Amino acid sequence: MIILGIDPGSRRTGFGVIDVSHGSPRYIDSGYIRIQADTLAQKLAQVYAGVSDIIARHVPAEVAIEQVFMAKNPDSALKLGQARGSAIVCAANHGLPVHEYAARLVKQCVTGHGGADKEAVQRLVASTLRLEGLPQSDAADALAIALTHFYTQRGLVRRGGSAPTRRQGSRSSWRHYQP
Amino acid sequence: MIILGIDPGSRRTGFGVIDVSHGSPRYIDSGYIRIQADTLAQKLAQVYAGVSDIIARHVPAEVAIEQVFMAKNPDSALKLGQARGSAIVCAANHGLPVHEYAARLVKQCVTGHGGADKEAVQRLVASTLRLEGLPQSDAADALAIALTHFYTQRGLVRRGGSAPTRRQGSRSSWRHYQP
Repeated sequence: MIILGIDPGSRRTGFGVIDVSHGSPRYIDSGYIRIQADTLAQKLAQVYAGVSDIIARHVPAEVAIEQVFMAKNPDSALKLGQARGSAIVCAANHGLPVHEYAARLVKQCVTGHGGADKEAVQRLVASTLRLEGLPQSDAADALAIALTHFYTQRGLVRRGGSAPTRRQGSRSSWRHYQP
Repeated sequence: MIILGIDPGSRRTGFGVIDVSHGSPRYIDSGYIRIQADTLAQKLAQVYAGVSDIIARHVPAEVAIEQVFMAKNPDSALKLGQARGSAIVCAANHGLPVHEYAARLVKQCVTGHGGADKEAVQRLVASTLRLEGLPQSDAADALAIALTHFYTQRGLVRRGGSAPTRRQGSRSSWRHYQP
């Protein structure tokens, strides 16, 4: 199964695609849609077209997106909401289920710490997916969201959003997620 | 030329369609899309499908939407942004130009007073478009936005957002807009 993670933003919308068909997550693709246009309508059309292209290219079965609980201020919340709305409606129009995950849960799942910084997310995502370099920040966040969906679907995240327990000392399948 | 006005909201998205081909605006259609679904993705898909249906039915040449300057709080701004994003990207995906107008300008254009209440907008929209009853509140706001676009395109709104001047004592074409 292919999972598409999306990290929407008003200037860049990150995406991360993983394949979880064989038990452990495998990196497929990631990057970001650059949003650069004169009008709001053109910007939102860029988000929609970008997400649409990624869906056509990788045919994900499910989409995961960051849930926004506490936006900084009304103005940035409105801008983020617009980009987010465009990305989500694109997935919905393609008949894909969209799952939302709180940023704190995403960080906790991927790094083991809900307050982890951006670089920690980049490092742990790279390690989990055996990437050679660090993924770009928005791409890393999107991959982290896709990974969180995988962990949650497999029941590896406890209710209430705790991170999966590390199985210390054993070379279990967990070694990929929390090296 | 057909103008579609949209008043997006997270629970109801108002729409108003007017025809301005013959100099003065003529009422075509109005109402609201009821947004009622279990998930956010389904809700945004309802907005998109609703706007898409209206565009298919009335083939507008231009779309006008309320600009949001000062959202009440981050949470409602995010919700409004998402609905707004879905409506705007739908219009953009149909190749339609989308014009934004501040709520204050819309009220001023239609009622002559930037701080007018909802009922005043309903009454003045009904009078301008010679409707028999008062339109529903979201529909009235959407019609008011469409009218504001018409006034602005015709150069009847002064730069800076003043309402068109009332021509007192004359039975000019303005009588329709500010009876």
